[in-house]
Amino acid sequence: MRKKGLLIVISGPSGAGKGTICKLLLEENPHIKASISATTRKPRQGEVDGINYFFIDTDAFKNMIQEDELLEYAKVYDNFYGTPKKYVLDNLEAGNDVLLEIDIDGALQIKEKFNEGVFVFILPPSLEELKNRIINRGTETMEDINKRYSSALKEINQVIKYDYAIVNDNVEGAIQDIEAILRAEGCRVIRQYEDIITRY
Amino acid sequence: MRKKGLLIVISGPSGAGKGTICKLLLEENPHIKASISATTRKPRQGEVDGINYFFIDTDAFKNMIQEDELLEYAKVYDNFYGTPKKYVLDNLEAGNDVLLEIDIDGALQIKEKFNEGVFVFILPPSLEELKNRIINRGTETMEDINKRYSSALKEINQVIKYDYAIVNDNVEGAIQDIEAILRAEGCRVIRQYEDIITRY
Repeated sequence: MRKKGLLIVISGPSGAGKGTICKLLLEENPHIKASISATTRKPRQGEVDGINYFFIDTDAFKNMIQEDELLEYAKVYDNFYGTPKKYVLDNLEAGNDVLLEIDIDGALQIKEKFNEGVFVFILPPSLEELKNRIINRGTETMEDINKRYSSALKEINQVIKYDYAIVNDNVEGAIQDIEAILRAEGCRVIRQYEDIITRY
Repeated sequence: MRKKGLLIVISGPSGAGKGTICKLLLEENPHIKASISATTRKPRQGEVDGINYFFIDTDAFKNMIQEDELLEYAKVYDNFYGTPKKYVLDNLEAGNDVLLEIDIDGALQIKEKFNEGVFVFILPPSLEELKNRIINRGTETMEDINKRYSSALKEINQVIKYDYAIVNDNVEGAIQDIEAILRAEGCRVIRQYEDIITRY
């Protein structure tokens, strides 16, 4: 019965493996579209406007903030990044699901503006495994590793603000969990109520 | 991560096809157990105590009511029928899901006592199809058919009290919906929160 798509917001600490999950989920489910961010940073070699990002200037970005055209935004160093509402809503209206991989601050901003979203938190299999994964990225100093680890612990405490939590001890299982969540959320009475009272 | 099972309560108007769905769901998922009702009616030929029903006398039944040992109960003609809490909770504790196919009054009683249950409403594909299915049962008078039909309409209005609604235009699809619902519900943060804070 579901016609409109769902916005699925995925967060989790660094090292939980959410990047891999999102990449495979998108590959395996063509009806799920990745959200595209707007940014004021300059395009890098090979990046295409409207595919990798919507590249806009600072005035245009500030205007989007004022007109409430962003589901969330943040300033990182000198650049703004944000999620344009229109791209998400157009896809949902067309019946596509939209996937947004985003940090916890961004997810919580979205939750305030778009509570109908489905909020999923990816957890590492264990704290030991989390530490190993952070270490195995290899490029960081011990100080960086400890910083990342303790910030991951803080992030895990935010899980209570999410609808679903998935322990990523098996990537394929985690993807199946997300697919089940999307199917189940489509069956929620509150998402279908208007259709139901029209139909019966 | 889920260890405890889920209680899944399935209702819907007569003619929605919930009986077929429940039968196949149980056949395809050995970890889902059908709830067993207690009743004061006498066993029929071939019925086995503890398999088809728990057959008990009226004093024992009334005692179960008083001791709050039933998730719901009703009196139909001269006999009591009810859902013993213990059988359900023991199975959930053992990690089995428990399936309970029950009318709306029963489901709403359960919702009051056991809000953690997952409440699913099965809808017929359309009102025309519902009427056809009621007629095709063949054994009833026109008056019975109209009565059943108008009571089905009233029942459909109760869908808002359920968590999920599934349109049964395809039995295998409906079963997959329920399987997705069980998998997704197992990922809900509120069902895992204690595990999560213990583990991280």
